[in-house]
Amino acid sequence: MKRQNIYILLFALLTYFGVAAQQLSSPDGDVIMEFSLNSEGNPVYQIAFKNQEAMKSSKLGFTLKESENLDGDFTLVDSETSTFNETWKPVWGEESEIKNHYNELLVRLKQESTERFMNIRFRVFDEGVAFRYEFPEQPNLGHFIIEDEKTQFAMTGDHTAFWIPGDYDTQEYDYTESRLSEIRGLMEESITENLSQNPFSSTGVQTSLMMKTDDGLYINIHEAALIDFSVLHLELDDKNMVFNAWLTPDVQGTKSYMITPANTPWRTVMVSDDARDILASRMTYNLNEPCALEDTSWIKPVKYVGVWWEMITGKSSWAYTNDFKAVKLGVTDYGKAKPNGTHAANNKRVKELIDFAALHGFDGVLVEGWNVGWEDWYGHSKDYVFDFVTPYPDFNVDEIHAYAKTKGVEMIMHHETSSSVRNYERHLDEAYQFMKDHGYNAVKSGYVGDILPRGENHYSQWMINHYQYAIEKAADYKIMVNAHEAVRPTGIARTYPNLIGNESARGTEYQAFGGSKPNHVTVLPFTRLIGGPMDYTPGIFEMDISKLNPNNNSNVNSTIANQLALYVTMYSPLQMAADLPENYNKFLDAFQFIKDVAVDWDKSVYLEAEPGSYITIARKAKGTNNWFVGNVNGKQIRQSKISLNFLDKGKKYMATIYADAKDANYKTNPQAYTIKKMKVTSKSKLSLNSVEGGGYAISIIEE
Amino acid sequence: MKRQNIYILLFALLTYFGVAAQQLSSPDGDVIMEFSLNSEGNPVYQIAFKNQEAMKSSKLGFTLKESENLDGDFTLVDSETSTFNETWKPVWGEESEIKNHYNELLVRLKQESTERFMNIRFRVFDEGVAFRYEFPEQPNLGHFIIEDEKTQFAMTGDHTAFWIPGDYDTQEYDYTESRLSEIRGLMEESITENLSQNPFSSTGVQTSLMMKTDDGLYINIHEAALIDFSVLHLELDDKNMVFNAWLTPDVQGTKSYMITPANTPWRTVMVSDDARDILASRMTYNLNEPCALEDTSWIKPVKYVGVWWEMITGKSSWAYTNDFKAVKLGVTDYGKAKPNGTHAANNKRVKELIDFAALHGFDGVLVEGWNVGWEDWYGHSKDYVFDFVTPYPDFNVDEIHAYAKTKGVEMIMHHETSSSVRNYERHLDEAYQFMKDHGYNAVKSGYVGDILPRGENHYSQWMINHYQYAIEKAADYKIMVNAHEAVRPTGIARTYPNLIGNESARGTEYQAFGGSKPNHVTVLPFTRLIGGPMDYTPGIFEMDISKLNPNNNSNVNSTIANQLALYVTMYSPLQMAADLPENYNKFLDAFQFIKDVAVDWDKSVYLEAEPGSYITIARKAKGTNNWFVGNVNGKQIRQSKISLNFLDKGKKYMATIYADAKDANYKTNPQAYTIKKMKVTSKSKLSLNSVEGGGYAISIIEE
Repeated sequence: MKRQNIYILLFALLTYFGVAAQQLSSPDGDVIMEFSLNSEGNPVYQIAFKNQEAMKSSKLGFTLKESENLDGDFTLVDSETSTFNETWKPVWGEESEIKNHYNELLVRLKQESTERFMNIRFRVFDEGVAFRYEFPEQPNLGHFIIEDEKTQFAMTGDHTAFWIPGDYDTQEYDYTESRLSEIRGLMEESITENLSQNPFSSTGVQTSLMMKTDDGLYINIHEAALIDFSVLHLELDDKNMVFNAWLTPDVQGTKSYMITPANTPWRTVMVSDDARDILASRMTYNLNEPCALEDTSWIKPVKYVGVWWEMITGKSSWAYTNDFKAVKLGVTDYGKAKPNGTHAANNKRVKELIDFAALHGFDGVLVEGWNVGWEDWYGHSKDYVFDFVTPYPDFNVDEIHAYAKTKGVEMIMHHETSSSVRNYERHLDEAYQFMKDHGYNAVKSGYVGDILPRGENHYSQWMINHYQYAIEKAADYKIMVNAHEAVRPTGIARTYPNLIGNESARGTEYQAFGGSKPNHVTVLPFTRLIGGPMDYTPGIFEMDISKLNPNNNSNVNSTIANQLALYVTMYSPLQMAADLPENYNKFLDAFQFIKDVAVDWDKSVYLEAEPGSYITIARKAKGTNNWFVGNVNGKQIRQSKISLNFLDKGKKYMATIYADAKDANYKTNPQAYTIKKMKVTSKSKLSLNSVEGGGYAISIIEE
Repeated sequence: MKRQNIYILLFALLTYFGVAAQQLSSPDGDVIMEFSLNSEGNPVYQIAFKNQEAMKSSKLGFTLKESENLDGDFTLVDSETSTFNETWKPVWGEESEIKNHYNELLVRLKQESTERFMNIRFRVFDEGVAFRYEFPEQPNLGHFIIEDEKTQFAMTGDHTAFWIPGDYDTQEYDYTESRLSEIRGLMEESITENLSQNPFSSTGVQTSLMMKTDDGLYINIHEAALIDFSVLHLELDDKNMVFNAWLTPDVQGTKSYMITPANTPWRTVMVSDDARDILASRMTYNLNEPCALEDTSWIKPVKYVGVWWEMITGKSSWAYTNDFKAVKLGVTDYGKAKPNGTHAANNKRVKELIDFAALHGFDGVLVEGWNVGWEDWYGHSKDYVFDFVTPYPDFNVDEIHAYAKTKGVEMIMHHETSSSVRNYERHLDEAYQFMKDHGYNAVKSGYVGDILPRGENHYSQWMINHYQYAIEKAADYKIMVNAHEAVRPTGIARTYPNLIGNESARGTEYQAFGGSKPNHVTVLPFTRLIGGPMDYTPGIFEMDISKLNPNNNSNVNSTIANQLALYVTMYSPLQMAADLPENYNKFLDAFQFIKDVAVDWDKSVYLEAEPGSYITIARKAKGTNNWFVGNVNGKQIRQSKISLNFLDKGKKYMATIYADAKDANYKTNPQAYTIKKMKVTSKSKLSLNSVEGGGYAISIIEE
């Protein structure tokens, strides 16, 4: 087919290369990666897609601390190619079977002057290229300290990018869509406030970074299998449009401490001329190790409600009292404290939530603010901030546990660490055991505020090591983890599927903190979700937050139909119905979709996709013939035209379509939706209008 | 008696004071502390001893970070005086009953401009003055961060001091004896090398600091009950001879994070005209809280031998193999490693030690280097350096445990943390449980090298919190702790008597690293031992280290008689016979003293004492009528004249005197000793010569 053309192209590319040039193509032949050593012995690589240059020649290597750098003077010892093709079954996911098919090139390099060895392992999938550095056990390289990673990603032009500011402590930014050359000028306004933040450069951005070229190529840069290494950011040389790897430093400015044998995480570059391929790609998971847990029967997707949104909006409080200037656990006497009257995690309210969950078939109830310490929980660099086992006087763990059990509902634990990580690790065993003793099988953990040990960053090697420690220890207790403000995922859930969720991006909470851009959710699946699911907490029906809290004028920049669609477009095995029961009770017909929608899938079909503009996905609920379709729409009203040809031929289905009403508007009329039922088959075609910040959701039930 | 004179003197002193001057005297009336507020509202205090000014007017207070300072603008709210007199029984100690008798003054201060409250609690004992700052719970002071402590200790002249360089990471320095004015000039040469060190000033010194005035007053500055606060150092203003408190900073330069209600540790100033009073004082213990453990029956003094000195001297190794450039626990395959042939912690050698211990009646055997990871244990800022449960292939924990049990000997565990403190805390429960499962009841822990979390210091609040955490958790497991390279003790063993030892000073190991000054042990009891016992590891009989390791030319600057005396003069409930069995077997007559000497006491009598010159102590073995006397001598030959009037009148005893031979010399003839037996009574007087770096030891057994 087109293979010939590619070889011709590559020949042209090869003239830039020094020695030892080697090619590796994807199984379908569309993606070609070229590796070589330049005249200084620098490893370099470049990427082509369907005869097009997708990434220019880019250098590879490291500078080291207190040692010779590993960025040049290399010769090729030997190389090895292989092909891998398997299908594996995830414990949960967007489909029940994942194909892992790639061609691999392992190049073994020797630095002549130091007699040290470094390997680079490339894998080329149909959707892109991945590579990692490997440092085998060897006489001249044992311990070493990475000062900087010198990996480059050389763009072919001034692409359009969907980016958030590079930051060592938070990803909770709205995405900016701009040309690469415009990043510098837009950086300052893009850095909005956060309780812990540490931006590093006026052209620094985070991964996963989504781009589009003027030629219609979609390029996504991220990393996979981030284990015991610092987070990869990208710093743009905006003269040359080259992204340089920028690792997150620790308190001493060091990037990562290494001991041979060691591998870095994978660096991934997805490339396609169809944005849907980016969403459909499982490269990130495939680059992670297979499941490390023998028994995964205890890991189950969860649809839940919770005592949370009322605190986020300021209607209620996490804290039990306003009496204390500061809390000293074990000393402060809550028994004598005057309740502030706004504490939401009380027995009565929680039982209401349990009743609501039971009535509507939810699996779980999350309760935040149940444990002592919330009066001064952030902003004080406080070490012993929570003990994770002592409830407030108005929350009876045993009573609630018993009540939930009679209702067939599971309680979901909450561990806010306040980023006091030593304290959390000290209490981890006891806290997890407390969960098991009281019937909790899942925990939402939080890392709000600056890290203790002081001076460490959320994304430095020290903390990556911690998040992993918490996940693995949770697995020992058969506990599922949903970590907020932790590092964004890199596919580790393949290996540890008890990591059922992360926040690690700007979640729905920001809709109560001033609002997010109405097209935010048309970007997230191309960026944040590349590494794993997000606990986005959708399902807000009351967009005017002042209705909950007169002092909060924030608007949820979304329509109800858009909120429903999120249960399909924002894939997660953990889905919250985040609004208050009181608000759902006003729109029980729309709420029906949230009740019906699945949280685990046999199959996903990506119908329409354009980052920042729209995403339409159809998914088949696991173990059923029912399908759910979601469409989220960006900044302009749009007609979505889809075919239902993914349905089984010959079968009949009843579709219920939850769509924006004609006069719906995310600012002025967000609650205007229509619900229409119609019979459909695989031959049906639908044409639906979605407003700005709007969308639609469809349930398709086999008759 | 002399009270009148003192009041006259104090009246004179009081002319310096502004308002609210208050006096507090010791129970015997010899020590007087004066407190007042000066015209700027600064709290100030001064001390007199027997009509002499012992400390000039000195300011008190703090500067805070991101808040108004707490160092002036105070008014007196009220004050309270009281008297306390009790006797308590330590679990182990230099005597079986300790008297705690003091007068107390509590002054309550209000900072007018901020409406914040700070109290200062003074206690005056017969041996000196102690005070601490107390911050009650209050509306305007919850969380606060101490930037600097402004406590002063204003000396009355250019005293002679026995000092080591102020340092955030080590106390392992030889003491320098000099005038205060000479410290600056001598600092550089006093800072000898250490694997982790961080000196901070050319006039910075550590506590406990021992001084002597030209008028013959002995003054000692230290702290007591250091809990969750950073270590106090002293920085000398050598124009005015004023010591300023200098707290150890954390990685961000912060001193201590505080939450009201909170107290600082006690600051102590001992004063006497008899150096023996400093040694006999129990002020430091008395200022600590009573025992926090209900059951202390499992805490027992220990005399032990170990697999240690042969590694310290370089004769043997901690590491099992020389194969590995770096060790990755769980990855590195020790099964395939070639043994280096020098690994001391092997079954055969350890059984020899067990046999030796059993033969000579020792309680325990310490084994270092038993667990995997020693090949790269320091110098690499390595996180996962040890797991504390995996033995080397040539060390069989179960076999050794069983063997030791049949011999009636207990094994002593060793946990080198390499200062990778997160790693240690993560493994602490498992490591302690492993100990209990294998019959270990005591652990020697080590903190060699720079701290992880990186940038923290051995003596910062973060680490003080850790050491305490390890002690308290050990108590939960009924484990005794002997922590090396940890913070020097401040009497916490009263509250947690399972802290049976610390190193935290220049121990015997330095005699194999080039040697210590021959009068080192005549200083330590006045400095390091003020806060608690030291695992000094005495008992070296072979002073020529090249006899053990031809490549090590170090000399142990001591005589055998001096080494024997240390078992009495260096009080510790944990005493090692540190030399090799092979060396003891050559001098079994002298070794008899080590076998006989007790490790716990009913009574101690301080016969002679002059810091840097000599110390002679007699102690009565607990529950017996046997006494043991030790004399250590400094830099000049000296005749020690003692009366045995501490013996029970009318009783007869057999004394065995182990003394320096006439021609003994710590450099050229250290093994020259005499042993003489004689009958003695309470009327006996002895006159014995001790050479430079020498001494004598006497066992006095009731007939």
